[in-house]
Amino acid sequence: MQVISSAKELRQHLASAAQGISLAFVPTMGNLHAGHISLVEQAKQQAQFVVVSIFVNPLQFGANEDLSSYPRTLDEDIAKLRLAGVDVVFTPTESEIYPVLQTVTIELPEIANTLCGAIRPGHFRGVATVVLKLFNLVFFGHAPRKIALFGKKDFQQLFIIRQLAQQLNIPIEILAGETMRETDGLAMSSRNAYLKPAQRQEAQRLYRALQQVVQAVQTGRTDFATIETQTGQYLTQLGWIVDYISLRSAASLAPATADDQQLIVLGAARQGRTRLIDNIEFGK
Amino acid sequence: MQVISSAKELRQHLASAAQGISLAFVPTMGNLHAGHISLVEQAKQQAQFVVVSIFVNPLQFGANEDLSSYPRTLDEDIAKLRLAGVDVVFTPTESEIYPVLQTVTIELPEIANTLCGAIRPGHFRGVATVVLKLFNLVFFGHAPRKIALFGKKDFQQLFIIRQLAQQLNIPIEILAGETMRETDGLAMSSRNAYLKPAQRQEAQRLYRALQQVVQAVQTGRTDFATIETQTGQYLTQLGWIVDYISLRSAASLAPATADDQQLIVLGAARQGRTRLIDNIEFGK
Repeated sequence: MQVISSAKELRQHLASAAQGISLAFVPTMGNLHAGHISLVEQAKQQAQFVVVSIFVNPLQFGANEDLSSYPRTLDEDIAKLRLAGVDVVFTPTESEIYPVLQTVTIELPEIANTLCGAIRPGHFRGVATVVLKLFNLVFFGHAPRKIALFGKKDFQQLFIIRQLAQQLNIPIEILAGETMRETDGLAMSSRNAYLKPAQRQEAQRLYRALQQVVQAVQTGRTDFATIETQTGQYLTQLGWIVDYISLRSAASLAPATADDQQLIVLGAARQGRTRLIDNIEFGK
Repeated sequence: MQVISSAKELRQHLASAAQGISLAFVPTMGNLHAGHISLVEQAKQQAQFVVVSIFVNPLQFGANEDLSSYPRTLDEDIAKLRLAGVDVVFTPTESEIYPVLQTVTIELPEIANTLCGAIRPGHFRGVATVVLKLFNLVFFGHAPRKIALFGKKDFQQLFIIRQLAQQLNIPIEILAGETMRETDGLAMSSRNAYLKPAQRQEAQRLYRALQQVVQAVQTGRTDFATIETQTGQYLTQLGWIVDYISLRSAASLAPATADDQQLIVLGAARQGRTRLIDNIEFGK
């Protein structure tokens, strides 16, 4: 496994090592958990050559967010990726990715300003911009298949990356990985490490609350707004700060209507300063 | 020479015909003149395989601009490109490039809102977005060199495309072609076809006025704002509607200062409804 931090070196290495064979790429912010590793395993099943990037992208963090405290565990990450059989780990510095002020960015559809985008203005612009830059660094040569993998826990991100690829004619298949969960149901996330023991105990309730929403819809309720409000109030009473609980069309991410057959419920809520997100896709 | 209008077919053809050899791309809006052909000749000198696109891009036209009247001469264009030895001409329809509403676009630095961008809001966003889409359609395979060529007549466009490529890590060399001129100095442009005989006679004066600016600076004048104003007034008196006459640093396109050694004077002005642009790069 090669660990490469220079963009130029990455391209040089891939030009010889990955030319003409299928290539899969898993962009990450490091602090790898079983969710990331399952994306890597999926990547290995799909492609002959697997590249993982580890880059905590400042452009997707708001001014008051956790950029400085975001967990960085590079040595452990590299050990895990070596064990998983990754071919190249790309670990650029901030100045390698942003050598000049990034004034060329990606303008996204209105969906990027809803849900997490409403709480985190500019977040998805930062995500889309760095993902496009990383795509251009990794996928510049010939490969019979070019694949990039994203976890479903960040469902809105996945949706936006698919739009990015489609609308900019990016010749890369975007594949999704299932959300990995702790034994009590909590979606795996690097931010779980922030949770104090009591918060960690409570954290499982976000997923449970989303499960109750699914159940309510599947038993025939169509008063979606009421379900969302009630679920939010329930979590608020338990001490959560709720950003949103939202029923949406799984295909368009538009607010769900009674006609939608494939739905998704998404939730974002905070335990103290730790913001957790989760979602469940389901059919009626 | 292959003429291809489907994006899928373009990729399929290039995957077999252009794999592993140097590839040069000249994006155009058609109505080809000697300026375009000189870009094609430059492309042929630089690369083994040359692709030209002809696409009048609606996204870069404002609501009150000349999208519907823009000259379309596809048969003549194809004949010229065949003669010039082009390998592939890509002639997509509007729905091939924009099958869905284009809500993913490129946000550009402030320079895109100055000069022509101040007069044509959103113009460069439309240019950058379609250029990135075309790049992704043309340059998806392996080539030892990937080149795209743009004419210097549209200097601000060239500058912005260079920023786009640099800041998004697009692995394509951006090359510039010199402005081709009619015998009286008028920069070749598809829009020259709009000019009535008297306007065509007057049109040469834009270039002459820019030449006078160069001369004024080269003889030592540093009152750039005054030179700009005087030149604009001179043209206005002759019946032009002047959008701007502007002295800039050739490297940064920032307003020129007395310290700059490499300068450019850019001008945009209208004869009736026909908007002409031109520029001259020069050293002090």
